[in-house]
Amino acid sequence: MHSFQELAKEFTTRFEVPHFPKQPTSLYEPGNYFLTIGGKRIRPVMCLMGNELFGDICEDAYNVAIAIELFHNFTLVHDDIMDAAPLRRGMETVHTKYGNSVALLCGDVMLIKAYDYIKKINLEHIRPVLELFNKTAAEVCEGQQLDMDFEKKQSVSFDEYLQMITLKTSVLLAASLKLGAIIGGAGEGNCNRIYDFGLNLGLSFQIQDDYLDAFGDPSKFGKDVGGDIRQNKKTFLFLHALEVATPEQKAEIDELISTNPADKVERMLEIFRACNVDEWANRLKEAYLAKAFKYLDDIAVTATRKKELTKLAEYLIQRQS
Amino acid sequence: MHSFQELAKEFTTRFEVPHFPKQPTSLYEPGNYFLTIGGKRIRPVMCLMGNELFGDICEDAYNVAIAIELFHNFTLVHDDIMDAAPLRRGMETVHTKYGNSVALLCGDVMLIKAYDYIKKINLEHIRPVLELFNKTAAEVCEGQQLDMDFEKKQSVSFDEYLQMITLKTSVLLAASLKLGAIIGGAGEGNCNRIYDFGLNLGLSFQIQDDYLDAFGDPSKFGKDVGGDIRQNKKTFLFLHALEVATPEQKAEIDELISTNPADKVERMLEIFRACNVDEWANRLKEAYLAKAFKYLDDIAVTATRKKELTKLAEYLIQRQS
Repeated sequence: MHSFQELAKEFTTRFEVPHFPKQPTSLYEPGNYFLTIGGKRIRPVMCLMGNELFGDICEDAYNVAIAIELFHNFTLVHDDIMDAAPLRRGMETVHTKYGNSVALLCGDVMLIKAYDYIKKINLEHIRPVLELFNKTAAEVCEGQQLDMDFEKKQSVSFDEYLQMITLKTSVLLAASLKLGAIIGGAGEGNCNRIYDFGLNLGLSFQIQDDYLDAFGDPSKFGKDVGGDIRQNKKTFLFLHALEVATPEQKAEIDELISTNPADKVERMLEIFRACNVDEWANRLKEAYLAKAFKYLDDIAVTATRKKELTKLAEYLIQRQS
Repeated sequence: MHSFQELAKEFTTRFEVPHFPKQPTSLYEPGNYFLTIGGKRIRPVMCLMGNELFGDICEDAYNVAIAIELFHNFTLVHDDIMDAAPLRRGMETVHTKYGNSVALLCGDVMLIKAYDYIKKINLEHIRPVLELFNKTAAEVCEGQQLDMDFEKKQSVSFDEYLQMITLKTSVLLAASLKLGAIIGGAGEGNCNRIYDFGLNLGLSFQIQDDYLDAFGDPSKFGKDVGGDIRQNKKTFLFLHALEVATPEQKAEIDELISTNPADKVERMLEIFRACNVDEWANRLKEAYLAKAFKYLDDIAVTATRKKELTKLAEYLIQRQS
């Protein structure tokens, strides 16, 4: 069994090759730029770990892992356009550096290239892999759409938000693990359990991400801290603050959203702290993590095989940046 | 053997079904809107005709034809964003009706859905189909990128333009035919000939498209006549006008581009007519059509099987709208 770090290293070696032709550079240079500015490669490594849970890692797991990472980067490039985000991983986003049209096309060819890696896998697995990959890809788009819809909506329920964030973030983590498991020949029950492990781990991870967007250290976070607040995103933190805020705090939240003052982020964070949103978020994060571990426990392989996935989950959730 | 019209009717019946889930409507309603505003369904029918050239039409040809039409619509939705086009087929474009972000995601899910139809085909053909589909999809993106690059370039050579238009338009027509042929079990030689038939037919078609954008009847064309001129697109017509224009006409062309006056389209068309660009374009169109027919002749099936493709080519190139 390999650790996350070992697999990330091996994956990176295989991923850091040219994925695109040389010409036209106006289209492919932006793609190469974005793929080389890094990222933790969490999703492809989860595919490899999902594969190794059921046997030795096979070549096809790498092909699917690369497809997953290309798909993930495609969503980032397009999401950054929609969110008008200036930075990603502390670097200029593609649309900021090259313009919206290039970023749009750059994302498109990244998605097409992802399918070119899926094309390579053993015919035995190609249909179930395409089935889950396509379903997940559409769900991620649905999640992004709901996220944008919620920005314009007056009120969003906790359940609505949970559904959105499940689609936008968790299903890809869950599918990455399950795709590895499918290629590893796992049975349906184990495939579903590894998926549910990933889904709950993803929710725990997202709560932490919302937390870091609000309370994170700007020098470590890499993204623009306070971005969710600036864009009036209805995050786990924001929705909970609305639930527990006093009438005065609620009035101030409404005022901050409607008048959009220069010190909006600072003032919103003050309210969040006064409402103990930070502590609440940490508790919710732990609850989803516990649920995830329950699914992992139920997978019918020996405990030693699960050790690295357990360590990964703990690493992901306790990270400070 | 079936006519284009018969196959278009049969395809339309199979295509006019819901391709997307109901929810979220904010994402999928725009996709359904765009897919139902019509289009001639030329590419999917070419896939069916490429298939029938080598035997009876099989179910997989329909799956690939639907994938092709979804892919084509994906490119239209995204191209319209990049070109800031207000109309398509005489109707509002997706980004005009629903906004840029929705149009971006709407295109993305259309592409993903295309791959969901490819997923269904017989495993025997899935890899060569994905291979050609992916190659072609990337090429179409490359063509769109070059098209945008050329808008900003001072001068573009005829060869550069030809390469761009081949990628942007012809490869998809060529690939549609060849995908049908692959599924029909055609050999490599015949597959390549049907591809080259489509490629040259596509160039002939594009010259006509450029012609109609400039000289077409607005009530029949469905698009915004003069759009290429307004956007300073370096079309076949424009590049040829530059080659044959007098110094006075060239100076006026330069002035029109740099000052962008309200009567730019009318004045550019006057120069085009004075340079006989319209007659020249018709001759070039015929030359590519003749080349296309030579490839069709060389395909090793009986002449009667080629009759409907011949009629289609003649219909496409002589159309007035």
